[in-house]
Amino acid sequence: MTDLAQGLRLRDDFPGVGDWHYLDSAATAQKPTAVIDAIARAYGPDYATVHRGVYERSANMTLAYEAARRKVAGFIGAQSDSEIVYVRGATEGINLVAQCWAGTQLKAGDRILLSTLEHHSNIVPWQIVAEKVGAQIDVVPLTQDGRIDLDAMRAMITPQHRMVALAHVSNVLGSVLDCRRAADIAHMVGAKILIDGCQAVPRLAVDVQALDCDFYVFSAHKLYGPTGIGVLWGRKELLDAMPPYQGGGSMIDKVTFEKTTYAPAPTRFEAGTPHIVGVVGLSAAIDYVQGIGLDTIHAHECAMVAKARTAISQINSVRVFGPEDSAGILSFEVEGVHPHDVGTILDETGVAIRAGHHCAQPLMRHLGVEATARASFGIYSDDSDVDALVKGIERVRKIFG
Amino acid sequence: MTDLAQGLRLRDDFPGVGDWHYLDSAATAQKPTAVIDAIARAYGPDYATVHRGVYERSANMTLAYEAARRKVAGFIGAQSDSEIVYVRGATEGINLVAQCWAGTQLKAGDRILLSTLEHHSNIVPWQIVAEKVGAQIDVVPLTQDGRIDLDAMRAMITPQHRMVALAHVSNVLGSVLDCRRAADIAHMVGAKILIDGCQAVPRLAVDVQALDCDFYVFSAHKLYGPTGIGVLWGRKELLDAMPPYQGGGSMIDKVTFEKTTYAPAPTRFEAGTPHIVGVVGLSAAIDYVQGIGLDTIHAHECAMVAKARTAISQINSVRVFGPEDSAGILSFEVEGVHPHDVGTILDETGVAIRAGHHCAQPLMRHLGVEATARASFGIYSDDSDVDALVKGIERVRKIFG
Repeated sequence: MTDLAQGLRLRDDFPGVGDWHYLDSAATAQKPTAVIDAIARAYGPDYATVHRGVYERSANMTLAYEAARRKVAGFIGAQSDSEIVYVRGATEGINLVAQCWAGTQLKAGDRILLSTLEHHSNIVPWQIVAEKVGAQIDVVPLTQDGRIDLDAMRAMITPQHRMVALAHVSNVLGSVLDCRRAADIAHMVGAKILIDGCQAVPRLAVDVQALDCDFYVFSAHKLYGPTGIGVLWGRKELLDAMPPYQGGGSMIDKVTFEKTTYAPAPTRFEAGTPHIVGVVGLSAAIDYVQGIGLDTIHAHECAMVAKARTAISQINSVRVFGPEDSAGILSFEVEGVHPHDVGTILDETGVAIRAGHHCAQPLMRHLGVEATARASFGIYSDDSDVDALVKGIERVRKIFG
Repeated sequence: MTDLAQGLRLRDDFPGVGDWHYLDSAATAQKPTAVIDAIARAYGPDYATVHRGVYERSANMTLAYEAARRKVAGFIGAQSDSEIVYVRGATEGINLVAQCWAGTQLKAGDRILLSTLEHHSNIVPWQIVAEKVGAQIDVVPLTQDGRIDLDAMRAMITPQHRMVALAHVSNVLGSVLDCRRAADIAHMVGAKILIDGCQAVPRLAVDVQALDCDFYVFSAHKLYGPTGIGVLWGRKELLDAMPPYQGGGSMIDKVTFEKTTYAPAPTRFEAGTPHIVGVVGLSAAIDYVQGIGLDTIHAHECAMVAKARTAISQINSVRVFGPEDSAGILSFEVEGVHPHDVGTILDETGVAIRAGHHCAQPLMRHLGVEATARASFGIYSDDSDVDALVKGIERVRKIFG
């Protein structure tokens, strides 16, 4: 642990890090040179469209694009690459399932189960579809230390619950869900379960089959990859039964003005020219993190957050949120100081954190705060970042003391 | 014209071109170094999220992101940057309008007017929404030379038509629509008009206010910019009255499990972390094409296509489709040779064209073909490309002769 806490010594791989203390990786991760170079190559000498060209470079780009799909499938333990749908990001993935699965499967009186700590992206899409079909939303409470309370979930779930949607790792508290147990409880009543893996995929090894969930989503930009691309994984039989999401090129079988038929999943869900270079960049990002190993990354971030938690807790009038074993994410408040002021003063000392409601307003209300300050770690984080954070908070205390 | 036909001498700006005869710019355009460098910088030393960070680099990225919105607005003559919605591409823009405008405004018995030459992305979204609300789709025929027949449109439009959706420039024939006249006809009966500007925005100067349309969409990747990003422009009062498209972070005003309220347009339509670097790249692409000038580009491509048309027409057994004054795009067939074979043989001689139905199956049926071969020009095209194309087609004739 001591070695890990000094960092994985990867800083030099990240042109966006340098000697900056970037502690906002839960918002978005910095990119390694390997990813940036792959993107530049794909926009340069390798650039061509996919799936359509009769010339060699387009055929090569198509190979790269579909090889990336197999890589993603392997990375999260999917059974087949036909279960991998490229989306803009986790938000779109959840909206797609809400509209195309819940929107066609749920009827008035059905219920959807969420939790108090969900990100808005895992609340609002369900509210939109619930209003459309006349379904109700229920909310699993949290344990004292800020985990989704699975005992409570077990007690409150009913056969009316058709969909359960939960975060694998909380973007505010870093709490890790026991996905397998949540899936077992959901399946007990015949509900499907979607896991929002945004904060999990960059931080711990994910195997969707072992987790036994039905849908899983994540964004590339939090996994050291490009913006504008993400992944929806779904069980093949569920995807196959879902209608298309957007209409357009590529997703069709045959178009006439009288009747249009659609391609099978995942193509059916990928209308229009895709974010080709985003996929290439995602593939490079997976190579990069696999080269380090998710278990190493997880141990590293746990060590970072443990060290930060211990140090920050010892500062007078600082309150730390979330469980002891949070995964790389630490929320706190400095008593009497607005989190935005904490963030601004930290910025002056070269420390970047996030301050706000973190797109989790219901959780803020649960915590009894308007906002929190949040420090989140990545593979480039090291001791110097924790030291700078602690020093910065002490400065905040001095200024507002 | 003669000078222009020799090319704009920009080849060296494009690492993806070199001595390749890339004639598939209507599928996707190659990227200038200026755009690739802007993307690499944005993923490197400048990288941060937007709208949320309390630290300086995030504030700077937010400024760049919103400055790009103003640049886009200026580029297409929008009244205000609040009329500019960032989408994945033109396909998503059309789906958004189909779902959020037509899906809420149209009722059973209403009608939607399209044309025979539309791309699938401007057909299928309307079919999906028409089925949902019980609306009907009518199809404006083409003139003999392959333009949308506006006289026929005027004769067939009725007050039941609530939405008209037409391509500004055909992706198969290069035919340019008289948008202003089409808009006048649509507005005569109180219909709204959406223009698919995918092939127009890279090829001619667009001013949405002068065209008097209601919605306009285009994709960045066809405008020498990145993949995964595009623009929906809509009149402010129309966007303001539309419900959100996807739910998630950023697009909300306030979230509770009981009731969620939404941000005003365009934010309401931009759920989740956006394709930040895509926007930066789009901005660089607009700078690049504006540095050359759309009128110059248009004249250049018209000259290219005119030269190619004349030369190809003189080859025995070659049929050329579309109007004389097509904008940068030329479809043809070599009698008795499948377009895919034409494409493959051309590829062997270093010429990249597209062969297929071009996501326009109804137009293929109208032309009485399964597929066409298509050569499309860009700002890097020059005489050498036309010569290589002609030589390649002559080789096809020889092989299949």
